[in-house]
Amino acid sequence: MPETMTMVLDKVNSPEDLKKLEISELYKLSDEMRELIIKKVNTTGGHLGPNLGIVEATIALHYVFNSPVDKFVFDISHQCYPHKIITGRKEGFTSPDMYLKYTGYTSPEETEHDLFKIGHTSTSVSLATGLAKGRDLTGGKENIIALIGDGSLTGGEALEGLNNAATLNSNIIIIVNDNDMSIAENQGGICNLLTELRENNGEVKNNFFKALGFEYHYVADGHNLENLIKTFSLVKDTDHPVLIHIHTIKGKGCEPAMINKERFHWMLPGELDRLNDAPAPQSESYESITKDYLLRKVSEGEPIIAMSAATPGVFGWNKEFRDKLGTHYIDVGIAEQQAVGMASGIAKRGGKPILAFMSSFVQRTYDQLSQDMALNNAPVTMLIFWGGISSADATHLCTFDIPLISNIPNIVYLAPTCKEEYERMLDWSVNQNEHPVAIRVPFEISYSGEKDTTDYSVLNKYKMIEKGEKVAIIGLGSFLEKGRELKEQLKTQLGINATLINPRYITGIDKSMLEDLKAEHSVVITLEDGELDGGFGEKITRFYGNSSMKVLNYGALKEFTDRASVEDLYNRYRLTNALIIEDIKNIL
Amino acid sequence: MPETMTMVLDKVNSPEDLKKLEISELYKLSDEMRELIIKKVNTTGGHLGPNLGIVEATIALHYVFNSPVDKFVFDISHQCYPHKIITGRKEGFTSPDMYLKYTGYTSPEETEHDLFKIGHTSTSVSLATGLAKGRDLTGGKENIIALIGDGSLTGGEALEGLNNAATLNSNIIIIVNDNDMSIAENQGGICNLLTELRENNGEVKNNFFKALGFEYHYVADGHNLENLIKTFSLVKDTDHPVLIHIHTIKGKGCEPAMINKERFHWMLPGELDRLNDAPAPQSESYESITKDYLLRKVSEGEPIIAMSAATPGVFGWNKEFRDKLGTHYIDVGIAEQQAVGMASGIAKRGGKPILAFMSSFVQRTYDQLSQDMALNNAPVTMLIFWGGISSADATHLCTFDIPLISNIPNIVYLAPTCKEEYERMLDWSVNQNEHPVAIRVPFEISYSGEKDTTDYSVLNKYKMIEKGEKVAIIGLGSFLEKGRELKEQLKTQLGINATLINPRYITGIDKSMLEDLKAEHSVVITLEDGELDGGFGEKITRFYGNSSMKVLNYGALKEFTDRASVEDLYNRYRLTNALIIEDIKNIL
Repeated sequence: MPETMTMVLDKVNSPEDLKKLEISELYKLSDEMRELIIKKVNTTGGHLGPNLGIVEATIALHYVFNSPVDKFVFDISHQCYPHKIITGRKEGFTSPDMYLKYTGYTSPEETEHDLFKIGHTSTSVSLATGLAKGRDLTGGKENIIALIGDGSLTGGEALEGLNNAATLNSNIIIIVNDNDMSIAENQGGICNLLTELRENNGEVKNNFFKALGFEYHYVADGHNLENLIKTFSLVKDTDHPVLIHIHTIKGKGCEPAMINKERFHWMLPGELDRLNDAPAPQSESYESITKDYLLRKVSEGEPIIAMSAATPGVFGWNKEFRDKLGTHYIDVGIAEQQAVGMASGIAKRGGKPILAFMSSFVQRTYDQLSQDMALNNAPVTMLIFWGGISSADATHLCTFDIPLISNIPNIVYLAPTCKEEYERMLDWSVNQNEHPVAIRVPFEISYSGEKDTTDYSVLNKYKMIEKGEKVAIIGLGSFLEKGRELKEQLKTQLGINATLINPRYITGIDKSMLEDLKAEHSVVITLEDGELDGGFGEKITRFYGNSSMKVLNYGALKEFTDRASVEDLYNRYRLTNALIIEDIKNIL
Repeated sequence: MPETMTMVLDKVNSPEDLKKLEISELYKLSDEMRELIIKKVNTTGGHLGPNLGIVEATIALHYVFNSPVDKFVFDISHQCYPHKIITGRKEGFTSPDMYLKYTGYTSPEETEHDLFKIGHTSTSVSLATGLAKGRDLTGGKENIIALIGDGSLTGGEALEGLNNAATLNSNIIIIVNDNDMSIAENQGGICNLLTELRENNGEVKNNFFKALGFEYHYVADGHNLENLIKTFSLVKDTDHPVLIHIHTIKGKGCEPAMINKERFHWMLPGELDRLNDAPAPQSESYESITKDYLLRKVSEGEPIIAMSAATPGVFGWNKEFRDKLGTHYIDVGIAEQQAVGMASGIAKRGGKPILAFMSSFVQRTYDQLSQDMALNNAPVTMLIFWGGISSADATHLCTFDIPLISNIPNIVYLAPTCKEEYERMLDWSVNQNEHPVAIRVPFEISYSGEKDTTDYSVLNKYKMIEKGEKVAIIGLGSFLEKGRELKEQLKTQLGINATLINPRYITGIDKSMLEDLKAEHSVVITLEDGELDGGFGEKITRFYGNSSMKVLNYGALKEFTDRASVEDLYNRYRLTNALIIEDIKNIL
C-alpha cells in the first residue's frame, strides 16, 4: 500500500485504541500489520510464519481483554510481533531505522504489557499458573491468558503446566494456537489428537483437554475475528480453567511462508527475495560433514539413528536429508528430556543414537543427561552446535553448555578444532560402547591438513601443538585459533616463544602434560568460547593451585548478555591479543 | 510364618521357575514376598508402600513375559523389590546378613534382568521408547514394558515420553500402576482423570490415554493375578503402543502402610515397631525453623506460598503443617519444572514463593532456573535441603547442586552456617524483590549465639571470623565447622594462627577481602560440601590465578559414588585435618 494512504494503524497506539474500532477496521488492521511484519522480517530476518499466523488472534485478545491489567504470556514469545505493534512499539515495524530497537521476544524492559523475557518454548502455562496463583494470593481479579503453540505443547514444562493449570480452581485461560506445525513437522500423540480435533470441529470421542479437566472451546478459523472475539468474550472472567483451541495458518498472508512453513518459521534477511534463486553452492561445513557421515553409516548397515528435538534446521538436516535417513532419523518434537532418555534407551539396546542440540537448548534437559545417560554410561553421541560467545538475544545465549555438561560425571565432552579431528572423534564415539560422548561442533570449518589417528579412548590426553617456553597457551576448540594468533603476537611483541596446546577434552585434565609444563613455564593461559564460571579453564587453574604457576583464564563472564556485539564482549572479557598480552606483561 | 514351613519361594530362583507354578502357588508366593519385604524394610529402612502394592503385578509380568529377552523398565525402580526377589536376588530379602547386598533400585551390575540404574522418577517411558527403537533398528522382536506409577506420570519426561510412545508404531507396553498416591497426595488434572477412570471401571467419555493414541486396558483389581495375567497375555507381542492401567493399593498387606500411605512410602528402620510410641519430642532444626517462619508470615498476612514438588516430607512439611498453611501451600506433584516456572510467575505477580527441593532433585529442572527465574530476575526463594557428601545411593547424590545453580547468572546462592544466619537470609530473601535467591540449608542445626544483622542485599561480602596469618581457610556453609577444626589443628600442630572466613555467598567472590589476604597469607584453603568441578572453590582459585597465592580446594570429586561411607569419601577427598595439614606442609 502507498504510505500516503490512511492506515488504521495510525489510530492504534495502545490496546485501548483497538476497542474503538469497527470489525471491518480490525480486518484492515490485520492486513496492515501483516504487511509490516513481512517487510520488517524480510529486512532484518526473524520469525515470520508464527507471527503471521497469530495476527487476528492477537487483535481479538487485545480487543476483548484489558492489558496490562489482564495478563498475556506468549509462549516462546516469537509470536509477539503483532502484540508489540499494538502495545506501543509499532515504530519497530513502521520505521526501518527502528527495526532493531525492540527484541524479537517479549521484554518487560520495553513495556508493562510484557511480563517475562521468553525465548525457550513450553514455559507459558507454568508461568501463567504462577501469575494466577500470585493474583489469588494478593486478592487480584484479572484474567491470566497463556498463548501456546501446538509445537510447544509437547515440551515437559508445558505438560506439567497443563496438569497443574487444569486443577487451579481459578481464572486461567490457555489458548492453544494450533497451526499444525512445530518448527519442522509436529510429532507424537498430541499432534495426532490435535489433528483429530481439527478434522472434527473440536468434537471427538476422547478429548485430551477435557480429560485433563479444562472447559474446552474450538475455533475452527483462527483468522475470523468475529468468532475469536465471541469465544474470548465468552470465557472472559471465568472462575475456572479454560482452554481455547484455535486453528490458524502458519505464514498466513505470505504465499511462500504458507507453502514452505519450515523454511519461513525463522528466516534470514532478504530470503523472500531469493525464492527463485538457484540454491547457493554449498561449501563444506561441519553440517555437511555430519550429514555425509550419517548417510554413509546408514548405507553400511549400521544401526545409526540421527535424533533431533524439533530443530533439525539448525544442523542443516533439511527434509531431503531426513527422508534419505528414513527410519534412521527421529524428531521427538520439542521434548529434549525425551530425546536424551530415548537416546539412552537406544544406546543400551545396541542402537547408535547421534543426538544433536543447539547449545542454548541442551539446557532444556539436565537430569536426563545425569541420570538416564551419564549414570548409566549409555554410549550416546551428542553433537552440540553453536556453542560460544555471540550477539544472540538474552534468551538464546550459547555460553552455558560447558558448565552444564562438563561437571556431570562420566560424560566425555570433546572439543575438535578442525575437520580431521571432528571426523575422528565422531567415528570413535559412534564405535565405542563405554562412554556417553558430547562433541562441541565448531561454527566455522577449518583444516589441520593432517590425518587424525588419535585413539580417543585414551581419555584426557591433550595435544601439544608446539612446545615453547615461559608461557603456555591452552586453546579449547574453536579458540585454538585464538591461541595461535596470541602465540604469534607474543613472539612479535615480547619475543616469547610460547607453547601451544590443543586440549581436545573438555571434561578432564592431562595431568602429565600440565605437570611437565612446570619445568619451563611460569604462566598458563586458557582460552574458552563459553562461560568461565564452572567451565574448562578453572579446572586447569585448580590443578596448578598448589604450585607457583600463574594461570589466566579467558572466556565469558557469568551474565546474560543481550544482542551485544561480539567485539564489545571480547573487549570486556579481555579476549583480545592486546589485552591478554597486557595481562601477561603484568605478571611476568 | 515359621521358617521351617515349605515356601513356594524356595522353588523360585529365576523368572522361568515362576511359569511352572499354579495360580494358587503364585498367590502364596505373593504372601511370602510381602512378608519378606515388610521384615526387610522394617530392618533396613527403605521403600515399603510402593513395593507392597506391586507384588502381584510383578509376578504376573514375569509369568507372562520372558525377561531378560523381554525388557522391563521400572520407573523410579523403588518398586523393584518383588522383581529383585524373582530375578535371583532373593537372598537380599531372606537373609538378614545379605539385606544390604543389593541396592534399593534396579542395577544392571546385579543382573541382566535390570536395564538401568533408576532413582529419579518419570524416566521409564522415555527409556522404554529408546529400547523399542533400538530393538527395531537392530531387528529384535522382544516386548518392551515400562512400569510407571501414577505419581511419576506428572513429570515432564514421562509426559514427553507418552507423547512419543503413542506414535511409535511398534511394540511398547506402558503399565500405569495407579495407587492413587504420589509420595504425598497426587496433584493435578491427571490425578483427577485417573480417579474418574477408576470410578468408572476404565470407561469414561474422555480417555486421556486413548486421546494420545494408546490401546487402553483397565485392570480394576491390580492384585488379582488371573486378571493381570489375562490382560498381559492379551497384549503380549503387540505391534503397537498399549497402555494398561492397573489399580493397586499402596502398602497392600501391611495395615499401617495402607492407612498412612505417605508415612510408609519410604520408612526408617523399625518404624513399624514404633507405631504406638508417642512422637519423639522435636528438637529445633532447620525444618522446624522454616515451618515456624512460614506460619508466622502467613499469620501476618504476607502473600507467602510454600511450594513443594511432591516431597514435602523431606522438609518435615507433614499433613498437619500443610493443612495449617491452607492456600499458602502448593504441591505441584512430581513436576519440578512446573514448580520453578510457577514460582517465577507467582513472584512476578507479587506473591512470595518459597520453593523447597532436595538437592538431588533440583537437577530435575535447569532451563526453568535459567530462563523462567534467573533471566527474569524473579524474586523466588529456593531452599535446597540435604546438599552435601553422603552415603546415598548413586541415584540420590546431593553433591551437584552448587555447580548446577551457581553458574547460572543472576541467582544469589547463599550458604548459612547457623540458625541466626539462616533466619536472617530467609527473611531478607522473602522481603526483597531484586534477585532469585537459593539457600543451601545445612543438615544439622548449629548456633553462633550472635544476632545476625547483615544486610544481604550488599552482595558477595564474606564474613571474617578471625583474622590470622599465613593460611586462610574459607569454609563454605556447613563446612565452616570443618574450617574451625582445621584452624585449631594448624595452631596445635604447626603453630600457625590461621585466618577463618565464612563466605556466605556461593555465587560471588569478595574481591576486596581476597585481595587483602594477599598481604599476610601465602595459602588459601577452600572447603565445600559438594562437587569441586564447577563448584565454589574453583572461583577462588581463578581469582588468585595471576598472583603467587597458593590455593587448595577441598570437596567431592566428579563421580557417582554408591552407598560409600562418608568416612571413606572424606579420606579419598583428603577432607580430613591430617591430610589437609599434610598438603599445607608440602607447599609452605
